[in-house]
Amino acid sequence: MKPEVVTALGLVAATLTTISFLPQVLRALRTHDTSSISVGMYATFVTGVGLWLIYGLLTGDVPVIIANAVTFVLSGMVFILKLRYG
Amino acid sequence: MKPEVVTALGLVAATLTTISFLPQVLRALRTHDTSSISVGMYATFVTGVGLWLIYGLLTGDVPVIIANAVTFVLSGMVFILKLRYG
Repeated sequence: MKPEVVTALGLVAATLTTISFLPQVLRALRTHDTSSISVGMYATFVTGVGLWLIYGLLTGDVPVIIANAVTFVLSGMVFILKLRYG
Repeated sequence: MKPEVVTALGLVAATLTTISFLPQVLRALRTHDTSSISVGMYATFVTGVGLWLIYGLLTGDVPVIIANAVTFVLSGMVFILKLRYG
């Protein structure tokens, strides 16, 4: 497979996993219902993504920084909405 | 910061984001309730992680393969449970 195809595949993968939390944020904001969402999942995930962001900043890896900054904000919003709505 | 500290930080970050879906799987299995989980989030996320896995296999990146294989199974279980319980 051509290298540019492999790189494009990685970029699509990164975009999908990054934006995937947006529908969950919108659903929680619309319904005010987060009852079946695991607080442990988001506590762990947001912490992990925060460490990924620090890792990207320390290594100067721009794609890692951008993807994890966006994911940190979106998954952090789900976490805050879970804490608020229960 | 020492390079081995930065590498360790990346490994901790990868471990946390990978295992974070386990409490959501366990909660869904225990409660049979996935009502406030976004099906769009998991459809997008599982697709993205699947592409990350293919990317890892094509580039021969073992940490990317392992992290995304585990995340694919765990987030895929949440997606299947969502489709089953609604």
